[in-house]
Amino acid sequence: MPERILVVVCDGLGDRPVSGFGNRTPLQAAARPALNFLARNGACGILDIIAPGVRPGSDTAHLALFGHDPFKVYTGRGPFEAMGVGMEVRPGDVAFRCNFSTVDDRLNIVDRRAGRIREGTAELARALDGWEFEGVEVHFKEGTEHRGVLLLRAPGLSSLVSDPDPHQEGVRPHECEPKAPEAALTARVVNAFVKRSTEVLRDHPVNRARRRAGERPANIVLPRGAGIMPHIPTFRERFGMKCAAIAGVALVKGICRVSGMEVIDVKGATGGLDTDIEAKLRAALKALESNDLVFVNIKAADLCGHDGDPNGKVKVAKRIDRAMSLVKKALPEGAILALTSDHSTPCCVKDHTGDPVPLVIYGKGVRADRVRTFDEIACAEGGLGRLRGVDLLPVLMDLAGRAEKFGA
Amino acid sequence: MPERILVVVCDGLGDRPVSGFGNRTPLQAAARPALNFLARNGACGILDIIAPGVRPGSDTAHLALFGHDPFKVYTGRGPFEAMGVGMEVRPGDVAFRCNFSTVDDRLNIVDRRAGRIREGTAELARALDGWEFEGVEVHFKEGTEHRGVLLLRAPGLSSLVSDPDPHQEGVRPHECEPKAPEAALTARVVNAFVKRSTEVLRDHPVNRARRRAGERPANIVLPRGAGIMPHIPTFRERFGMKCAAIAGVALVKGICRVSGMEVIDVKGATGGLDTDIEAKLRAALKALESNDLVFVNIKAADLCGHDGDPNGKVKVAKRIDRAMSLVKKALPEGAILALTSDHSTPCCVKDHTGDPVPLVIYGKGVRADRVRTFDEIACAEGGLGRLRGVDLLPVLMDLAGRAEKFGA
Repeated sequence: MPERILVVVCDGLGDRPVSGFGNRTPLQAAARPALNFLARNGACGILDIIAPGVRPGSDTAHLALFGHDPFKVYTGRGPFEAMGVGMEVRPGDVAFRCNFSTVDDRLNIVDRRAGRIREGTAELARALDGWEFEGVEVHFKEGTEHRGVLLLRAPGLSSLVSDPDPHQEGVRPHECEPKAPEAALTARVVNAFVKRSTEVLRDHPVNRARRRAGERPANIVLPRGAGIMPHIPTFRERFGMKCAAIAGVALVKGICRVSGMEVIDVKGATGGLDTDIEAKLRAALKALESNDLVFVNIKAADLCGHDGDPNGKVKVAKRIDRAMSLVKKALPEGAILALTSDHSTPCCVKDHTGDPVPLVIYGKGVRADRVRTFDEIACAEGGLGRLRGVDLLPVLMDLAGRAEKFGA
Repeated sequence: MPERILVVVCDGLGDRPVSGFGNRTPLQAAARPALNFLARNGACGILDIIAPGVRPGSDTAHLALFGHDPFKVYTGRGPFEAMGVGMEVRPGDVAFRCNFSTVDDRLNIVDRRAGRIREGTAELARALDGWEFEGVEVHFKEGTEHRGVLLLRAPGLSSLVSDPDPHQEGVRPHECEPKAPEAALTARVVNAFVKRSTEVLRDHPVNRARRRAGERPANIVLPRGAGIMPHIPTFRERFGMKCAAIAGVALVKGICRVSGMEVIDVKGATGGLDTDIEAKLRAALKALESNDLVFVNIKAADLCGHDGDPNGKVKVAKRIDRAMSLVKKALPEGAILALTSDHSTPCCVKDHTGDPVPLVIYGKGVRADRVRTFDEIACAEGGLGRLRGVDLLPVLMDLAGRAEKFGA
């Protein structure tokens, strides 16, 4: 009988030795009886999420963990930026990273970041969102600070267009040019959108207020970095599996959705440092009753890594451990549990690195090895050896009795 | 801040157990306190330079260590043979391995190796070098014994031509035939060169002397194995890094040069068994002051392997160890050091084998593991696990804070 699979990804948990911790990693420095129980009774290893030394983004990391080769499916940041700001993205959509910028009366760019505008971009974005041009749906949403995302939806669009954003100030925006004949429509829509942004934004109340306050108006949108959303086959298409996901961060939620997972919202699961880890894992156990695979992303450790806060990461590791003691007790008979990370975010680097992440697989039929603790160093001696992110799902599918035989 | 990287490659250091050493490898049999210090305080692993069980050449090994997939960039031996004899090779150059051979008056091949000629080939080669035909520069240089290299340089050459060398005796040389229309010029030049070799060499003083001594004249050059030099992006193009290399052997120097490294000549660094290892490493540390990455190849252990001399290899390992104790002390704060080998050259095989080689990475942020000694067996238990040659550079770049994130 096929068994259920629970995958817990502790975002950014992997780290490097911290001198203040006697050269232990934050994970090594944290009391972690539940994680160590899993290590003692499970099979351990380390994962290169993308490939050795390659620094994963949150998007490429989760594509790999869901069994997609990111070198094949990751065609550009645009569509993933769109997911990151919470837009729905469908295969064939073309999306652009954008800046709110400031131009003068002659359309010369005065400031590519519109005085680093922070307030009011949601209202500006709403004024631009939901347009149509030559049959193409045009969506726009603000990001953080001066950033935004332009998303175009219609059959037959192409991402082979040049950037209107000239990537410098003192010049006018470039015409968006098609780099291939099939991109002509896309380029026309982008040019029309840039022109429309100047018309809509010029006298928008937010900009009138900015002028009065002596601030630069956000009176144009400059798109760049076109990307087309690839068709990513869903878990149901690939394996006939019903899958659910619990994640706090918009980008991860978006990748779960395009992978065909039902994204379950959990009260208190914010994606922030204060996220309620126990609530997430309780919800995951609940979801496992009606799903073949449940995926959980716990963001908090990554935030400590980006903040360079090893003490905070130790605390998060302890909280994860306490929450996992619940899972350990309540895991359904026969189910396969994997606990790992999507990338290292060492506190000394304050960003994602290519260091491999620890992995433990626990459950029925797993070949337990001699690893006694769950951490970056000990797991490297485990029975799973050194695997890649794309390998994890097939290994779990096989243990769960869900893999197809290749050959006769 | 990006850190500096020092890569020390002990050519052919990897070996197999030697029965006379109680089934230890030469490396295990050598006192090596400095190497063991690195192992104790660094992360260890083993490297399949190309892929498991694949026997690397010096050329393919160094391509892989510099992060190029040799299966993609290694299109033929010709250009690398040219580097091996010290010729400058540029992208687009077409090069052939050649034999000095003996033909009779009717051009029938009497001896493909011209009586295994050893002396005088430099003079013969000089007589053939530096010609031009239909706008193609023609270079020729002698190799060891009866061997030589023909190198053609012009825009639009192709390596898709057949071998003039018929690979047998008693027949006439083959016409060089183009295997594709774009190879017509290349074939014409090769045929003209072979004809010219008979004219130039027939009455050359070296051959007159050989005839007088009853030896077969080297009166024709037979090219084979055309290869075109691929464009190999330089370290600067790929990573914006300034790199230097120290190596004694022409082939390795050549690959360093096409990879965009400045090749530094060190007094006493011969590439022979008597090479001054300390001088090389001192020069490397000096070069590290003004470069982002410095690569050092120490050839001596490989020579012992080819000679089947395990005692010699033990001595070389001790000399490497003493020189590395210098490096250990003088390594700049924050720098990342890797020490490995480009392939195994077991004394019992007297040639390169596919056995993996030991690897240690030492420096800031490295996850030290439990390996206590640097050798082929102990490193296999290390925290780096089993990697491939092409993975080494990305792993080092990541540790040095020089890797780009893939994704967002």
